Amino acid sequence: MNALPAPHRPGPLPTRMQLEDGRLRHLLTIEGLGRPLIEQILDNAESFAGMNDQGVKKLPLLRGKTVANLFFEASTRTRTTFELAAKRLSADVLSLNMNASATTKGETLLDTLRNLEAMQCDMFVVRHADSGAAHFIARHVAPHISVLNAGDGRHAHPTQALLDVFTIRRHKGELSKLRVAIVGDVLHSRVARSQIHALNTLATGEVRVIGPRTLLPAAVEQLGVQVYHNMEQGLKDVDVIIMLRLQKERMQGAFIPSEHEYFQRYGLDARRLALAHPEAIVMHPGPANRGVEIASEVADGPHSVILRQVTYGLSVRMAVMSMVMGVNPQVRA
Amino acid sequence: MNALPAPHRPGPLPTRMQLEDGRLRHLLTIEGLGRPLIEQILDNAESFAGMNDQGVKKLPLLRGKTVANLFFEASTRTRTTFELAAKRLSADVLSLNMNASATTKGETLLDTLRNLEAMQCDMFVVRHADSGAAHFIARHVAPHISVLNAGDGRHAHPTQALLDVFTIRRHKGELSKLRVAIVGDVLHSRVARSQIHALNTLATGEVRVIGPRTLLPAAVEQLGVQVYHNMEQGLKDVDVIIMLRLQKERMQGAFIPSEHEYFQRYGLDARRLALAHPEAIVMHPGPANRGVEIASEVADGPHSVILRQVTYGLSVRMAVMSMVMGVNPQVRA
Amino acid sequence: MNALPAPHRPGPLPTRMQLEDGRLRHLLTIEGLGRPLIEQILDNAESFAGMNDQGVKKLPLLRGKTVANLFFEASTRTRTTFELAAKRLSADVLSLNMNASATTKGETLLDTLRNLEAMQCDMFVVRHADSGAAHFIARHVAPHISVLNAGDGRHAHPTQALLDVFTIRRHKGELSKLRVAIVGDVLHSRVARSQIHALNTLATGEVRVIGPRTLLPAAVEQLGVQVYHNMEQGLKDVDVIIMLRLQKERMQGAFIPSEHEYFQRYGLDARRLALAHPEAIVMHPGPANRGVEIASEVADGPHSVILRQVTYGLSVRMAVMSMVMGVNPQVRA
Repeated sequence: MNALPAPHRPGPLPTRMQLEDGRLRHLLTIEGLGRPLIEQILDNAESFAGMNDQGVKKLPLLRGKTVANLFFEASTRTRTTFELAAKRLSADVLSLNMNASATTKGETLLDTLRNLEAMQCDMFVVRHADSGAAHFIARHVAPHISVLNAGDGRHAHPTQALLDVFTIRRHKGELSKLRVAIVGDVLHSRVARSQIHALNTLATGEVRVIGPRTLLPAAVEQLGVQVYHNMEQGLKDVDVIIMLRLQKERMQGAFIPSEHEYFQRYGLDARRLALAHPEAIVMHPGPANRGVEIASEVADGPHSVILRQVTYGLSVRMAVMSMVMGVNPQVRA
Repeated sequence: MNALPAPHRPGPLPTRMQLEDGRLRHLLTIEGLGRPLIEQILDNAESFAGMNDQGVKKLPLLRGKTVANLFFEASTRTRTTFELAAKRLSADVLSLNMNASATTKGETLLDTLRNLEAMQCDMFVVRHADSGAAHFIARHVAPHISVLNAGDGRHAHPTQALLDVFTIRRHKGELSKLRVAIVGDVLHSRVARSQIHALNTLATGEVRVIGPRTLLPAAVEQLGVQVYHNMEQGLKDVDVIIMLRLQKERMQGAFIPSEHEYFQRYGLDARRLALAHPEAIVMHPGPANRGVEIASEVADGPHSVILRQVTYGLSVRMAVMSMVMGVNPQVRA
Repeated sequence: MNALPAPHRPGPLPTRMQLEDGRLRHLLTIEGLGRPLIEQILDNAESFAGMNDQGVKKLPLLRGKTVANLFFEASTRTRTTFELAAKRLSADVLSLNMNASATTKGETLLDTLRNLEAMQCDMFVVRHADSGAAHFIARHVAPHISVLNAGDGRHAHPTQALLDVFTIRRHKGELSKLRVAIVGDVLHSRVARSQIHALNTLATGEVRVIGPRTLLPAAVEQLGVQVYHNMEQGLKDVDVIIMLRLQKERMQGAFIPSEHEYFQRYGLDARRLALAHPEAIVMHPGPANRGVEIASEVADGPHSVILRQVTYGLSVRMAVMSMVMGVNPQVRA
């Protein structure tokens, strides 16, 4: 993993630099997108999902475009969904293992980016263990390149958050009438941070976070959420339960006593699920640690929409990819 | 390599589950396919081979379909032929290194399958060191997925057997009039087992197996073959000689005294080939161990159709892939 | 890395075998191509570059063709440019890691080639650490296969040399009026050897090589170049400066005292660049060792065309690939 150099110049805030003339140019973080733009992304994703429901999987919208997957951190699942989304839009896809390449210094990373630009790549999909990596890259790319953040450190994972709100809207309708609970390791989760921003931007009725003090960020209330340390109280009457993956590999201290005890206190089983609204849906970004944060009876049960999230994730990524390239799915449909 | 869990339910026999309304849904094993269906596969492969002879390599038959290669066991050659067959049908191909992925438990394997289904893959090409792996996966996939067995343990390698009978039919005509000898390590060969079933289903005149007792399965006669332990006697007047690869990596005991002695007793050289019919063809699934089971003078000689088998293998795999997807090559041709 | 066996038969010289009826069949080396053919390649590359300038990146010229990348030596950058060039011509691309495959003996390499031919690949792009590797392979392939040398040992890297002369022609015009200096590790550079042949074939006004005696081949003058050991003298009034990468990994003795001292004597900085013609261009095959052979102020400065070379490299490779396949870009344009 390479340490990123300090940016050459401060540059605009990521919340501003991802927009260009009100249009989406990069997708780095949910912050600053604004409700109309998020709803446009969801509407476009709905178009792709609708075409998909009719059996139309392959579209020529990005024919001639080249998407480079720059994965500095291994993630077969995320890389695969971006690769499939790009291929179904008829783009050419280049998958580069950035650990193996000669990018041990930040200077060399910039040289690598310049070369990919010169090869006329159009889009960089970036996954990196350091917060701010996608932002750093977006600040240094040529004007014709769009950068999509596929997860950077603890910071953001915006396409995951977008597919989550897409899933909620499709299954439960208008978010302003809903109670949504996010459960677990919020502290180490880039997903949770992005989810909270997306839910609040869409004026969700109530957003709760549930977890032990050791796994919640300090002053998490200031993000505009209700905080619960008791699972039973937090789940009461919610319409949507979003379970987070216990990020074992990220914990460096003794955040939890044991996996078993964690499941006892914060694991989602059928008994706890019964406290939520009778038609509540259960979500998880995957891959789930069965028996740690979620019981198999729930993950595979009738309330679970976990696998639907994966399917919607393709539509959402196709929407984002076509929008940053300035292509409108409706034109074709 | 991951151990497979016991199947959740017994399910139908593989011979039945690969058919749906008389149509090929999965290809797991040659057993139970029936002569009309095998002949339909060969006829469709003939269509692809014919188009290929006219220089038409790329067809849009599987445009919009996604083929996932799930190779739990490394095999560059087999993976490449399936990848090329899929690409020449215009499918999108996803190659997943299943050893590297997080599939160390059977439960996790099922999660991986569910996710690939949710990404709307249409076909899984499975290679696994355990017998029954493709069958296990086929039993657990969603209704829209087809599974192709690209070799499982000692059990089966059906596309190899199909390309073998395709090769025989193309070069020697009607199988009922032919004598075919399979030579070598039948015991450890998934290919041999599939070949014998295919040859018998097509009512081949006579099928012989030739090899030392230590490399033939117990009661091999019950498969409907003539058994020879003497190479010279077994080759006499045969029309087709199928050499097997000596599966060195599979032998755990002292099945053969030495490679040199094996070649002395069962290697195919020009002198022994002269015992067969003057127009006999020589086949090998590849890669050949030159000087162990076959002499270079024969592998590269005028009777050898070994490289033609590779070419036909693409047509046969295109036929199987299009059939399980419900697409008919004649429609387009 | 596998040692290549001695060729079975002497065969024609590489300078002859790459032509067939005056047409380019393989591209192994610049030697023997002749000025009209090189100019035709450059003109065709100009067509692709022009279409590219108009935003047309994807063309159906090689639809149905299969390109196999045989990289025996790792080179992400070169492999990527060939892969992109092939994909933008709509070819199917197969990337084979030849170190990992079973090619430990020369005989097995030939078997691998035979199999790829039987899978009906149309083109092999070969990168190998041994001089003559591409030539060896070209001598043994079937008549329908074309071989492109993507760098073999110290011998040749012809597409790099072609993109270099393309860059010079595009930025500085007619080569007969130009002074070109090649600076640095000529001894270990497959690029330099190919460049000198290309520049001389195109009747470049003056070709200079600049470097310490330890990094210039013996009798380098016989290649038709002026030799300078003093950087300042050599750069005087030149129109084009081609910096070579210091091939650290290839040096086995004490060719240079230290990187720092090398930069002091032969590194290109702004002060030395000022000795050249005021409108001189600076080139480098990449990746540059900043602070060793070139200062960042020059590599990133206004005289540098280093990144343009990368872009042109795609057009040149598209030109070569379409020409060896007998396809003319003008037909489509």
